[in-house]
Amino acid sequence: MDTQHVFALRGGKAEIEEGADFSPKFDADGLIPAMAMDATTREPLMLAYMNEESLRRTLEIGEAVYWSRSRKEFWHKGATSGHIQKIVEIRTDCDQDALVLLVEQIGAGACHTGRNSCFYRTVKAGTDGGTAKLVMNGSGKSFEPAAVYGKP
Amino acid sequence: MDTQHVFALRGGKAEIEEGADFSPKFDADGLIPAMAMDATTREPLMLAYMNEESLRRTLEIGEAVYWSRSRKEFWHKGATSGHIQKIVEIRTDCDQDALVLLVEQIGAGACHTGRNSCFYRTVKAGTDGGTAKLVMNGSGKSFEPAAVYGKP
Repeated sequence: MDTQHVFALRGGKAEIEEGADFSPKFDADGLIPAMAMDATTREPLMLAYMNEESLRRTLEIGEAVYWSRSRKEFWHKGATSGHIQKIVEIRTDCDQDALVLLVEQIGAGACHTGRNSCFYRTVKAGTDGGTAKLVMNGSGKSFEPAAVYGKP
Repeated sequence: MDTQHVFALRGGKAEIEEGADFSPKFDADGLIPAMAMDATTREPLMLAYMNEESLRRTLEIGEAVYWSRSRKEFWHKGATSGHIQKIVEIRTDCDQDALVLLVEQIGAGACHTGRNSCFYRTVKAGTDGGTAKLVMNGSGKSFEPAAVYGKP
């Protein structure tokens, strides 16, 4: 086993909040949420999950490696599309149960729908009893998914 | 029951990804992750969770209302500290199982440790078999938690 990135055991509250040990908390499914943002524009790109090994690989290779909950496999972002996310900085929060990835998004975008960001829609609260609706907030598709992923 | 924000039932993939219906997906615990960012500076502030009712309340009052997983209760952010998060915009992602809140953070900060952001530490990968470590990335505490929350 590669022991280059074994994470520290979780200590007490003060240690977790103020200490220098990185001891990420994985949930009951062994996952931690990771929010990827463009390091330059600060656009939110996508929210995905990592398990311990994918986080270790991410630190090792300097590119985002998630755990796909639907496919139940490691997901080296960009391995299929070429749209790799180069890690500029990883941050964790006070209780170390969430990550922010500041990344350089390579290629046309982060989203499998063909857009730069997965967060391409804004929620508009309903009025007078109406339901909330979504409106597009961006500049549309930046690539054709079929051309990149090879399927419609 | 207030029916002002009843969310749409989830349709097929195309509807979820390209449609105008807001049909958020809550996980097995009834929760959806919500990443709060400063609407102006784009600083990532905190990642918390909402259930259906807290999301409904958020849309209704225009301030972030989370579900506290530890306290198992609604968490109107700022109700104790005064550090309310006014909603500027809510975005959802392609499969509608994550939210980004662009907020105006009222008061000195989002984090209970006394900092503007909960993401005040950066992960540094270990070298030569060393473990990953955390380094502070910000300007330190912006308020004294004891003075705001009334306990040390």
